[in-house]
This record gives sequence, C-alpha cells and structure tokens, in this order.
Amino acid sequence: MPLDLPTAQNSASVLETFARVRGDSEALAKPLSPEDCMIQSMEAASPAKWHLAHTSWFFETFILVPNAKDYSPFHPDFGYLFNSYYNQIGEMHQRGKRGMLSRPSLQDVLSYRSFVNDALIRLVEDADEKTFAAIEPLILLGCSHEQQHQELLLTDLQHGLFQNAMKPAIYKDAREGEGGGAPLKWREMEGGVCNIGWNGDGFAFDNEQPRHKVYLHPFELANRPVTNGEFIEFIEDGGYQAPVHWLSDAWEVINQDLWTAPLYWRKSETDNKWYRYSLFGEVEIDPHAPVCHVSSYEAAAYASWIGARLPTEFEWEAAASLFPLEGRFLKGGAPFLPKPASNPENDDRLLQLFGDVWEWTASPYVAYPGFAVPPGAVGEYNGKFMSGQMVLKGGSCATPEGHIRVSYRNFFPPEARWQFSGFRLARDCN
Amino acid sequence: MPLDLPTAQNSASVLETFARVRGDSEALAKPLSPEDCMIQSMEAASPAKWHLAHTSWFFETFILVPNAKDYSPFHPDFGYLFNSYYNQIGEMHQRGKRGMLSRPSLQDVLSYRSFVNDALIRLVEDADEKTFAAIEPLILLGCSHEQQHQELLLTDLQHGLFQNAMKPAIYKDAREGEGGGAPLKWREMEGGVCNIGWNGDGFAFDNEQPRHKVYLHPFELANRPVTNGEFIEFIEDGGYQAPVHWLSDAWEVINQDLWTAPLYWRKSETDNKWYRYSLFGEVEIDPHAPVCHVSSYEAAAYASWIGARLPTEFEWEAAASLFPLEGRFLKGGAPFLPKPASNPENDDRLLQLFGDVWEWTASPYVAYPGFAVPPGAVGEYNGKFMSGQMVLKGGSCATPEGHIRVSYRNFFPPEARWQFSGFRLARDCN
Amino acid sequence: MPLDLPTAQNSASVLETFARVRGDSEALAKPLSPEDCMIQSMEAASPAKWHLAHTSWFFETFILVPNAKDYSPFHPDFGYLFNSYYNQIGEMHQRGKRGMLSRPSLQDVLSYRSFVNDALIRLVEDADEKTFAAIEPLILLGCSHEQQHQELLLTDLQHGLFQNAMKPAIYKDAREGEGGGAPLKWREMEGGVCNIGWNGDGFAFDNEQPRHKVYLHPFELANRPVTNGEFIEFIEDGGYQAPVHWLSDAWEVINQDLWTAPLYWRKSETDNKWYRYSLFGEVEIDPHAPVCHVSSYEAAAYASWIGARLPTEFEWEAAASLFPLEGRFLKGGAPFLPKPASNPENDDRLLQLFGDVWEWTASPYVAYPGFAVPPGAVGEYNGKFMSGQMVLKGGSCATPEGHIRVSYRNFFPPEARWQFSGFRLARDCN
Amino acid sequence: MPLDLPTAQNSASVLETFARVRGDSEALAKPLSPEDCMIQSMEAASPAKWHLAHTSWFFETFILVPNAKDYSPFHPDFGYLFNSYYNQIGEMHQRGKRGMLSRPSLQDVLSYRSFVNDALIRLVEDADEKTFAAIEPLILLGCSHEQQHQELLLTDLQHGLFQNAMKPAIYKDAREGEGGGAPLKWREMEGGVCNIGWNGDGFAFDNEQPRHKVYLHPFELANRPVTNGEFIEFIEDGGYQAPVHWLSDAWEVINQDLWTAPLYWRKSETDNKWYRYSLFGEVEIDPHAPVCHVSSYEAAAYASWIGARLPTEFEWEAAASLFPLEGRFLKGGAPFLPKPASNPENDDRLLQLFGDVWEWTASPYVAYPGFAVPPGAVGEYNGKFMSGQMVLKGGSCATPEGHIRVSYRNFFPPEARWQFSGFRLARDCN
Repeated sequence: MPLDLPTAQNSASVLETFARVRGDSEALAKPLSPEDCMIQSMEAASPAKWHLAHTSWFFETFILVPNAKDYSPFHPDFGYLFNSYYNQIGEMHQRGKRGMLSRPSLQDVLSYRSFVNDALIRLVEDADEKTFAAIEPLILLGCSHEQQHQELLLTDLQHGLFQNAMKPAIYKDAREGEGGGAPLKWREMEGGVCNIGWNGDGFAFDNEQPRHKVYLHPFELANRPVTNGEFIEFIEDGGYQAPVHWLSDAWEVINQDLWTAPLYWRKSETDNKWYRYSLFGEVEIDPHAPVCHVSSYEAAAYASWIGARLPTEFEWEAAASLFPLEGRFLKGGAPFLPKPASNPENDDRLLQLFGDVWEWTASPYVAYPGFAVPPGAVGEYNGKFMSGQMVLKGGSCATPEGHIRVSYRNFFPPEARWQFSGFRLARDCN
Repeated sequence: MPLDLPTAQNSASVLETFARVRGDSEALAKPLSPEDCMIQSMEAASPAKWHLAHTSWFFETFILVPNAKDYSPFHPDFGYLFNSYYNQIGEMHQRGKRGMLSRPSLQDVLSYRSFVNDALIRLVEDADEKTFAAIEPLILLGCSHEQQHQELLLTDLQHGLFQNAMKPAIYKDAREGEGGGAPLKWREMEGGVCNIGWNGDGFAFDNEQPRHKVYLHPFELANRPVTNGEFIEFIEDGGYQAPVHWLSDAWEVINQDLWTAPLYWRKSETDNKWYRYSLFGEVEIDPHAPVCHVSSYEAAAYASWIGARLPTEFEWEAAASLFPLEGRFLKGGAPFLPKPASNPENDDRLLQLFGDVWEWTASPYVAYPGFAVPPGAVGEYNGKFMSGQMVLKGGSCATPEGHIRVSYRNFFPPEARWQFSGFRLARDCN
Repeated sequence: MPLDLPTAQNSASVLETFARVRGDSEALAKPLSPEDCMIQSMEAASPAKWHLAHTSWFFETFILVPNAKDYSPFHPDFGYLFNSYYNQIGEMHQRGKRGMLSRPSLQDVLSYRSFVNDALIRLVEDADEKTFAAIEPLILLGCSHEQQHQELLLTDLQHGLFQNAMKPAIYKDAREGEGGGAPLKWREMEGGVCNIGWNGDGFAFDNEQPRHKVYLHPFELANRPVTNGEFIEFIEDGGYQAPVHWLSDAWEVINQDLWTAPLYWRKSETDNKWYRYSLFGEVEIDPHAPVCHVSSYEAAAYASWIGARLPTEFEWEAAASLFPLEGRFLKGGAPFLPKPASNPENDDRLLQLFGDVWEWTASPYVAYPGFAVPPGAVGEYNGKFMSGQMVLKGGSCATPEGHIRVSYRNFFPPEARWQFSGFRLARDCN
Repeated sequence: MPLDLPTAQNSASVLETFARVRGDSEALAKPLSPEDCMIQSMEAASPAKWHLAHTSWFFETFILVPNAKDYSPFHPDFGYLFNSYYNQIGEMHQRGKRGMLSRPSLQDVLSYRSFVNDALIRLVEDADEKTFAAIEPLILLGCSHEQQHQELLLTDLQHGLFQNAMKPAIYKDAREGEGGGAPLKWREMEGGVCNIGWNGDGFAFDNEQPRHKVYLHPFELANRPVTNGEFIEFIEDGGYQAPVHWLSDAWEVINQDLWTAPLYWRKSETDNKWYRYSLFGEVEIDPHAPVCHVSSYEAAAYASWIGARLPTEFEWEAAASLFPLEGRFLKGGAPFLPKPASNPENDDRLLQLFGDVWEWTASPYVAYPGFAVPPGAVGEYNGKFMSGQMVLKGGSCATPEGHIRVSYRNFFPPEARWQFSGFRLARDCN
C-alpha cells in the first residue's frame, strides 16, 4: 500500500501551508533561550533545538535530496545528527545523547531552517507537473510531521524544565478558562458494524488506513473527560494504594517509581492544595478541567475504581464521528492549559472530544486490516512502532489546529505521562 | 461477571480429574533430581519444586481454607512462600528469588501435595450438595491451573538446564516423527461477522468470555505452521540483519541481546548443521518440523520477509473452529519435540492447529467486550495481565491433553521465546 | 618472585594435612541437603557444591594434570564448570550462574572428590624426590586454598539461606559463650621502623611477602573488638542517619540499600530486642560479643562517631605480633557464633586478635614493596585482586584452625558484609 | 585538626589572587557558547556553567553568609542548585541532572559571579584584623577550589564535546611542541625514612597533612612519563587482549566497555594513523608526547607488560622533592596539549614531573597518619572521598600555574580516563 496522500492542490496552497507550519515552530521557540533549547531530560524526549533541526532534515532528506537538482545538503554531519530513527537512511546519533549537541548552535539551526525553506520553495516554484505530483504529498507529510514535533517540543520542554527546582514559567497562558465545567452524563451508542479509519478527505497518515468495518457491541460513553476534581477523589480514597484496581505492570511501575498522583502534581504542605507544574510555572489545580498527565495505567485504575472502563479506539471514533471537529487547539505558538468543559445548554452532546487533552483508549496500537508498510525509508514512519503502545484520540491543547482528524491515531507506551493525556469513561449497556 | 464455570458433574468424575492431573505433575517431576527442581534461570521462570508447591497452595488457599472445617494449613510459612501474585491474599516471597528456596525440600513438597490431596478428597466426599456446587468449579479451575503449570514446569526446566554447558538430557523423546511434512498451501476464509469466545461447553477461563461478535475481512491462512527449514532460509538470507522487517522494539532487542537464531539453536562449526537444545539433550534440527522457541518479533519479521503477516486471534479462531480439536499433546508425563505435519491425502485441511507449537497471533491480549474481572483474589488470575502481551493459540507438545479449547487464549510478552512458540502465516485476499 | 613455599616436609605429614583438610570440607557439608548445596544468592557467593568441586579442580588442574602420568580428568566438562577465575587456564562457566548447575549432582561431586583424593595420594606415594619437591608446595597451597573455601562455604550458605523466610537452622552452635566480655582499654604502641610480612616460618601466600620495613607513628589500640552492645548505641544515636560520619561512597550505599543495622540484624516489633540470623537460626544479639557482619564503611562510621579510627594493617600486625596466635577458630566442621571476650585477670593484653571476627583495617589491599606476581596461572591467585579492596586481619570463628598467621591478609570490598567481619578501634597518641 | 592555612598575607595580596583566579575562570569560558556551557555527558562531569556558579556559591556560602553583615544571597534557589556535595549545608540538586539547568542562564551566572566578587572585595576591604584573619584562609581555599574547577571545566567540556560527531575545535593550541622528546633513563633512589607531606610553606589542602615519616625501600624511577609511541607498542603487541597484565577489576572494565586504546583515540582506517580528540579538534598523535587519558588500570597493565611497576605516591614525592617545581601549566585561559619532554643536555634529571600530565601512582588515596577531618561542612572537602580512589601527582597542562605543590594529592577512581592522566614507571633495585 502506498502512503495515501491527497491529490492536486495547487502549489500556492501547498506553499502557504508550508510557510505557516514552519513559522509556527519558530514562534514556539521564540521565548526560549539557546540553553532552554538544549535540555534533554530522558531518552524519550528531545531538545527543542533538535526538533527544529530534525523537521528540517525531514524535508531535506525525503524531498530536496531526491528531487532538487544540484541541491547540496546544508552540512555534511546533519544527516547523521538529525536522523531520528530511519535505519534505511543510515547510521544516526544516539537518541539518548541529543542533549549533548551544543553544536550546531540554535542560531545555526535557524539558518539551516531558512536554507531548507528557500530550497523547498524554489523546488516547488520550479516544479513541472510530474515533479509537483511527486513532491506535494511528501510536503504535506512533512508539514504534518512538523506539527507533531511542535506538540512534542512543548511536552519535552515541560518535562525538561520540571527538573529545575526554579520551576521556570516560559509562556503566558493564552486563554482564560472558558466554561465552568459540566456534570457527568452518559450517552448510549447502538453498536453494530461500523466503518472505521480515514474517510479519504485530505491528508492522513498510513496508520489510519484502510477504512474498514468493525463490529461494536452497544455501549455508553461519558459526555466529557474525567476532571481533576474527580481524580482527586480517587487519590484521596487510596486509589494508588489498592492493588485490586491496577494492571500487574502498572502496580509494578507505581510502586517502583512511587507514583501517588499525576505527573507534575504536588500537594502543598502549607495550604493543603494541589498544584501542578506547567510551562506557565506552577499553578493551582482547576477541579473542573480535565485531568492531564496521567498514564493509561492510571486511567484504567480510575475506571476500575469508579466501576467503568476505557472506550476502545473504535467506540471512541464511532461516537466522535457524529460531532463536528471543534476544540481548543494550539494556534500561532500560544500554548495554554486544558480547560473546563462548557455546556450551557446542558444537552446530551459529547464535549471536549477534540483538543484540551488526548484521550487514552483501551486499544493497543496495531495495524488495521489491510494495512501495509509503505515502501522505502518513509515506511518506517509509523508501522514499526505497532508494538507495546496504546492509542490516544482527539488531540490536545498542544496539538496544532488543523492537524487532527477523527481517524487520527496517536500512540504512546501505557506508562507515558508527559503528554497532555487524559481519558473519558465508557461502560457496557445493560 | 462471575467465573463462568461448568455445572453439575458428579463428585466421582471431579475426583477422577483431580487425581489424574495431580498425578501427571508428579510423573513429570519423577526423572528430576532434587537439585534439578531448584533451578531458576530468570525471573519469569520458576523452579520445578515451586510449581509443585504453588499448585497445591492454590487448592489449599482457594478451596480448603474457606470450605474445609478444621482445616489447618500444612505449614505456616507456605502461604507466603508459594503465593505467586495474588496481592489480595497477602505478602509473598520475591519472584526472582524462588531459586533460593532449598527448604522446604522436594520431599517436603511432595508430602505437602499428599496432605492437600487427602484433605481435598475428604472435603469432596463429605460435601453436601450446596458445598459441592460451590467448590466444584474451583476444583476444575485448580486442575486447569495445575495443567498450565505442568507446561511451565517443562519450559522453565529446559531454560534452566540450558545454562549448563553439560547440556543434560532429562527425558526420552516420547514419539517418533510422524509424517514427513506438508507443502505450504493457502486456505481462503470468507470473513463477515463471526462469533468468538467460549461456546459454553465445559470449563473455560474468564478471559475467553463472553462470547461476542467480531467483524472479519476475507483472509487466507497457511495450512500449517512455518517450518524449521523455511526459517533457516530467513536466517541465511540475512533476515536478522535487515531492519526493514523488524518492529522498532524488536530491532532493539535483537541488537542488544545479539539474537541471530531461535532460542536454543546453535550452528555447529564442525559439521555446519543446526542443532537445538531440548530436554532430550542437543538434537539436530528437523527441517520439516514447525519452528519453535521464536518470539512474536521473529514471527512478525519472518512474515514481513516472506510478504505475509500473522493472523489475528479472531482469524485463527474462526478458521480453527471448522476443524476437530486433535493434535499432539502432552500425555502422562511423556514430553516430545514438535513434529513435522502429516497430510498424506494432500487435501486442503488446516494442519497442526492444535498441539506441537503455540501459534503467535497479531493480537495484543486485551479484554473481550463485556469482560469483567471476577470478584475476590481469584479475579487476579487473568485480568490484571491484559497489558503488554500477545495472544497465542492452539497449544503445544507440552500442553496437557484435554487442557485446550479453540477459544483458549495463552499470552506472553512479545519477546518471550522459552515457550514452545511458533507461528502460522496469514495474508489478505486480493 | 616465585611463590615462597615451605621446604622439606616428609610425604606422610603432607598426606596427613591433605586428608584432614579434605575431610573437614565434607564434614561441613554433611548437614546440608543437595538442595542447600545449590543456592547462590549473589554473584559474589557460590553454592556449597561448587566450593566442594572447585577445590578438587584446583588439585586436579595444578598438580595432577601436570605431574601425574596417565592421569585423565574425572569429567571433560569439569575444567570449564569449576574454574573460578584463572584466565590463563581457559574459558569458564559464568560466575553468576553457578547456582544453575543442578548437574553434576552433589553425589557426583563427592565422587569427584574421592577420585582426585585417590589420584593425589597415589602421586605422592609414588613420587621421587624431585617430583615431591615440586608438588609439595602446591599441595600445601591447595590445602590452604581449600580452607579458604571452607570459610566461604559457611558465609555464602548463610547468605543464601537468609533469603528464605523460614530462616533455617542448619548447625548447632558448637561452643558456649566463654567469658562475659571485657571493658574497653587502650594499649599504647611506640611506633618506629617495624618489620611487616611473613617471617619465613611454614607456608604463606605470596601477598604476605616479602617481609619489609614500615615506619609507624605512635598509636593506641583497643584491647578488644567493638561489641554488639556498643554498636547498638551508635544505631540508636542515629549513626546511620548522620552524613558527617560516613565516607561519600558509604553514604551512597546506605541510602540506596537502606542499611540501618548490620547485615542479618532485625529489631523485633514484639519485644523490641535485636536479633540476627545465623546458621543456627535467628538468635538474640549478645551485647558482649564482637559486632559482626558490618562493612568497612560501617566500621569507619562508628569510629568517627566515637572519635577514633581504624588501625592500619601495619599497626595491627605490629601489635598482634607481640601476642600468641590463639583464638576461637573453626575445628572439625563445627561452626559457632563470635563470642564475648574473656579477660578474668583484667590485664592489658590485646584480646581476640585471632578468631571470632575478622577485623577491618584502614589499609587498602595493595602489593608489598618488592612483591611480584608468580609466573603461570597460579599467579592469578592473589595479585590481580589488588584493587578496590580493604585488608582484614586475624581470622574469624569460621576460619579453620591452623590456617591463619599474623601476617595473613584477607581482603574484601569495603561494602562487603556477609563475612564474619568486625573491627577494633585505634587512635593517635597525643 | 583545623585546616592548616597560611598566616598573615596582607589584604591587597589576597585580593590580587582572588581577582586573578576569578578572571581566569571567565577567560576559559569566553570561547564557549551558552549551549557549550550546558553539556553534562556523565554523572562525574559537570557543565561549564555549573562550575562557574558553584565556585561562586563556595565563596558565598563559606565566607559571605557567615561573615558579611547584611549580605543577602544573590538568589534563594542557588544554594540548592549549586551545592555540590556538602550534606551538612543542606539538600542539593541531583548531581546527574546538572545538565538540565537551562536556567539560570550563562548571563545570569556571570552576574552572580560579579555580585559575589563585589561583596567579597567589600568584605575584605572593610574587615578588621580579626575578621581578616578568619576569612583569609577561606579565601585562599576558595581560590584553590576554583582552580581545581578550572581544570575540571576543561576536562568535562572535552568529554562533553566528544559526544558530538562534529568534533568541535574550541580553543587554539597555545604552545608549540617544545623539545623533541628524551630517551628513557632510570634514576636510582636510596630510600630509608623520608618526610612526606606539606612542608608548611604557603597554602595546602588538609589531605597533604600532617607531614610525617615513611620508610622507602631503594627504587628506580624513569626520567620521564611513558610516551604515546611507547604506548602504541603495547597496543600493537596485543596488550589489551592479554589478561595476564590486567587487574581483575580492570579486565572486567576493558571487556565490558570494549577499551582498546586510551580515551579519545581513534585509528584512522584511511591512513592507518592514530588520532585523538582534543579541545583543539582531532589531532594526530605525537609519539614523543606523554600518553594521556589512560586509567590507572591501563597504566598498571603497561607497566606489567614492560616488566616494571608504578611508583607509590611516596616514592614519587621523595624523588620529585629534589627538583624545582617547573613545568608546563595552564596560564591565562590558554590550554594546550601535553608536549614531548625536552632534555638537550641529556643529563640524569627527572623530566616533566610537573605539568603536561598527571601521573598515576600505585597508592590508594587514604589519610596520612594523624589526619583529622576539619570541623564543619568544609570538612567534607577531601576526607570523605578517601575510599576507592588512587593518588595522582604533579599536575597537568590543564592545572593552573601556581596551584600545585610537590605534596599535592589529586585523586580519581582507578578507571577514570577523562583527566589529563598519564604515568611514569618505577622498579625495584636489584
């Protein structure tokens, strides 16, 4: 199966998207010092500078080198330094040592970005129809790829700065809390044979394809994600100490790493309130906002405690398909915290399906029926990670606007907590 | 959901099963020295003596203590020493240190077995109808549990003895190779909405339930598992060195642990032939027998290399339901190696679905729709392991006869290789 | 420098020593089950069976193979299995996996011992003068080697059995507490140029040689080792929580491994008393007996807390040379616990210099001036371990009688606690 | 024992030293980008920015806070962030996470330095006699401390930049190779009772004290350190593959970490020559310069191979006391590589005793007779590290001029290679 990529946009539209996405990355980096852009706090996270360089390497390697005549790479070592995991391209710098790269400087990386931008624009402008048809889907892929790294840049940065007792505040929270929360309601879904996966409109990743049928049993879905306030009840009821609610792997992790609350949370000994570290500094927990920075283990344990379960990715997608793709997303380099739901009409809609927090599902990340890895190195993009990870749906406050789809499948290991990850409850119909 | 357990057998029949299963464990242990029964070669494996004791602890803890009046446990420390992972029962001896338990001796453990046997027989014989109804399903659960440990006793023992350069031969291969192998054929399956899970006949584990509908797309299934000879072609074509065929996690494991062939395999430098260690000593590889002691990673890599894939557990079960549950299983304490397929009529049947080798599927081990963990400590049996593992189907040469069902779901982490695990290919219909 | 070995004993005397030492090992093993002889609880410890086999391998490899005509090793694999660390002899079984060796059985190892014994006796009886001169020092080396392993057999066994919640009692404490302890007194030593090292009488290891001069400043030495009662005061004064008393490496170890008392110690929550595990089961701590199973880190921390220090090995040896080599040692396979000092005359003698507990010194284990590694594989005996270890002096209750000398240098890493290790205080003269 | 600190310098002289040392640190940092100053490549190494801050914290904590009236620390978090290991001062930032500190910025740290400098100058200028007497020795200690960190800044930086495939060149080698090397000669030393340790002239660390007597046996010392060319012979003779020459700990390290040459060395596959990474980029190995970046393990193995040994620290000091303290040291922020010896007269002097490379000795780092840890947190400076390390003597090309003494004792773990560490041979007299 080839990467299913969109047809026939005109070059101006493609270049507009390209310029916007590239600019957004730089806008995010603007408030950061060169030193902030260096931090790598764990193997799974990368320095901001590395994200800025790697996304450029992606355009250079998959588009410019094969297609732009006389293109000569910006620097002979960058192919080695900024390859992430494409074994078919060649050897690469060790993942856990990205934080060692004081050179190239942030300034050099920004020059690298300009150089690649210029060459790509020239390539598109000079392209004949056949060339354009060949590169257009790859440019869109590169833009989607860069948007993924914008979100990672934020989550990795937050994890890195959290290591610092000074708890730096980097950004200003871009949005005020909209809505005062919404009471929990259950919405029933009928089930039966449903169509799942990308419906063919616009760009999509290979892992959302092919569209296929899935049989669903009737189920109910909560109208909004679990909130901080609800999760605090779980904590205070001894949830983290009760093995009956935890998967075996999870029980091992929480006892070894001494988890007693979501990542970044701290209960103040002075005022007895809960606080969390964020890119806006340490802020008080809003009980009506969706709980965030929990692993799928904690999501499942909460669900067990309350007598419910997580939805499968298919249940989530079937239900979410009924609603418009609206939500609070990242826009123009201005991050914000997950916010409380808003439902003044108090109707039966599903709220906050998109934006605010990614929602853990009960589904391991595996191939759809009929999926095949695309040929070439670009085939390493998604397929080889279909092992040991769980699917998350819906996007978060750090997901760039326009990046997400209802068929979009994000994936992280079940113990990951440094993404903007929350969850919504489901339950079987009686 | 309660454990779905069978109704109304008479007590004589239950005691007959009990006696047979308990006797089989001891028959397997007979050729072993007390020292052989001590070896623990990794955290995931247990000493034979521990298996013999733990299975008795299971009957004692879940049946005798709550039901047998005046029953006093055999030894006050055994509850701590031989609890495997039931957190709701209490604290337990550290899993990785089971090999430290020189005391109780093998002889003491055999006495413990007798003691439990006598008490259980007495309990059944004296039971009124209501008590019998309560304990009968638990006795059958305990028997199935013990059969699982019979298989583990063999695979753990083989792994332990493999650490010894003397390569001890413990048993005599109980069966001659039956059949000279069968050429690869593909059998087409129609798909559609299928019923999956336990059909309600006899005993079954909770994780096979509830029976539910799954939508399958049309697919083809190979008529028999991949053979040793076929797998050697993969090795010799450089399969272990080609990243394109491997999942990302898999590539890390094979490079870190330097895998270049299935577990226990060795290519002789003197005669250039492949050999494998087994409980019968080191034997030459039979090219027509199913490949065994591969991880799901290696199964998936082979499938990628040959241009196919692994079946899902649902595809496997739907196809296998069409055939009788016949195969080469463990019987009466006489183990044997996986054997070549036999198909003299050369017809289109699916061969070796049951017995010989467990077959890795493409399905992560998760709950069936409507599954609920049974209440009480016995609920820790299966549900809490539904994370990070893959489903295997069909049973192996080390699975006790009568233990398996077509709905049976075995599960191991994707990198596990010390079970009798092979695989069968599937592919999409064009 | 050749191994400095004793001259001209007659063969009867050598064979008498050989028979006694070999018999002592078997006497120690007598109360052990084959399973007890299998346990290996850490890489630094070996199973009792392995000790019994390795000591035989030593005689076979260094004496029989090179000297006994027509000698054929007992088993072709034993050279690999029972080589400890002699790289010049060849490859060897992995140290941390000695506990995997269920085969050969204990019975086979005892047969191996007989086989080696018979061959060695025959070799000595048939030896001409030249051959006897060549093998006699190696036989004495082999006997001293075996005595070292007798002590290790006991300490490794205790560590292994300690992993078992049943706390098995293996032996019966062979001696009653002799003496009711002695009050602490300081004995002054003059210092100046002293002679240190083996004085040439009888057998000695290469690491005790050559005898050489050392300059000592005046110092004082405690008349007896620190007692359990004194060490409990340190514990109860918060000694394990006060960083000021601990070496940096030590502070890391006690915080990582959560040390709060000597190894094997436990404070009962029911009677508030201190107990320790021993080969005689768990026994109450005797406040007058020397503290035992402490690391050199704990010894140094105690000394800092009390305002003293540990003696150097040279101070200890210079002082101990003034006293007869008398003490409570292992004899005839009958172990016992360290006992209180006895000093009814209440004079100024140094007590318990020998036997009861090894005494940590402040001296790292390095070569004496003029030391050279003996040629051949036997040169790997001591020299290559002169790195990262500390010297202990005087022998313990588990050191075979006749094995020790005042010049004897035992050595263990500073964090080791599973030997019978205590300490004696020193201080500078004002 | 109090810190033995010098008496009665006038305040102008102290302030001159202070200004020079503080300025030198900043001169070293000048060619570095803020990002270069962030890198931490292992727990044992620190970022340049951290060195710049910690040395200021030292003056602030031990001098300003206790002595300067109305002094208020520059920032409330810096006491936590820049405490290295002084447990008696309080909690501290985790050592291995110093590379996470993007904040404070390099610029902020330079402001911190100015702030501390100003306050300290004011304190000295305003000090009455008694105050000056109290703070003068601590200021000199702080200056020596800062000079130690200047050397570490260079060695840590080199290790950090080495992780980057771009192999950055940071400085320009400040000195041309002086001298064309010198042939190996042996110089005989008589031995007897010698005086060792600080002779009371000027500043010295506590660990060089008290001066005391040591008995030395006659020995010979090489006239210069082992050269690169000589070490290459060892490599090419299979030295790294011959267990007979290696300590047991060393053999484990070289096999686990796959050492086959000194740190930073690489044999080019194109021209078959040896190169090494340095702060001047990758340069060709000079066969006449002293070998550098070897561990004490490699030094000892080379010595065994050539039939010699390493000198003890006492032998080295006794011999070096006969020569003037001259050598090639760091001066004014201009680093250089170790250079060949120069001996045009070809006489019997000992060459390169000081500067160029630190020389590993055979002596573990332990307390001198009569040593006592100074009271207070400053007592954690040296004493608590007297475990598991080896003494090096003489200073290197990265040691600031004026910092070293013949009694100076540097110390590192035996496996450390990232310092400018070489060695000189010794042997016993016949």
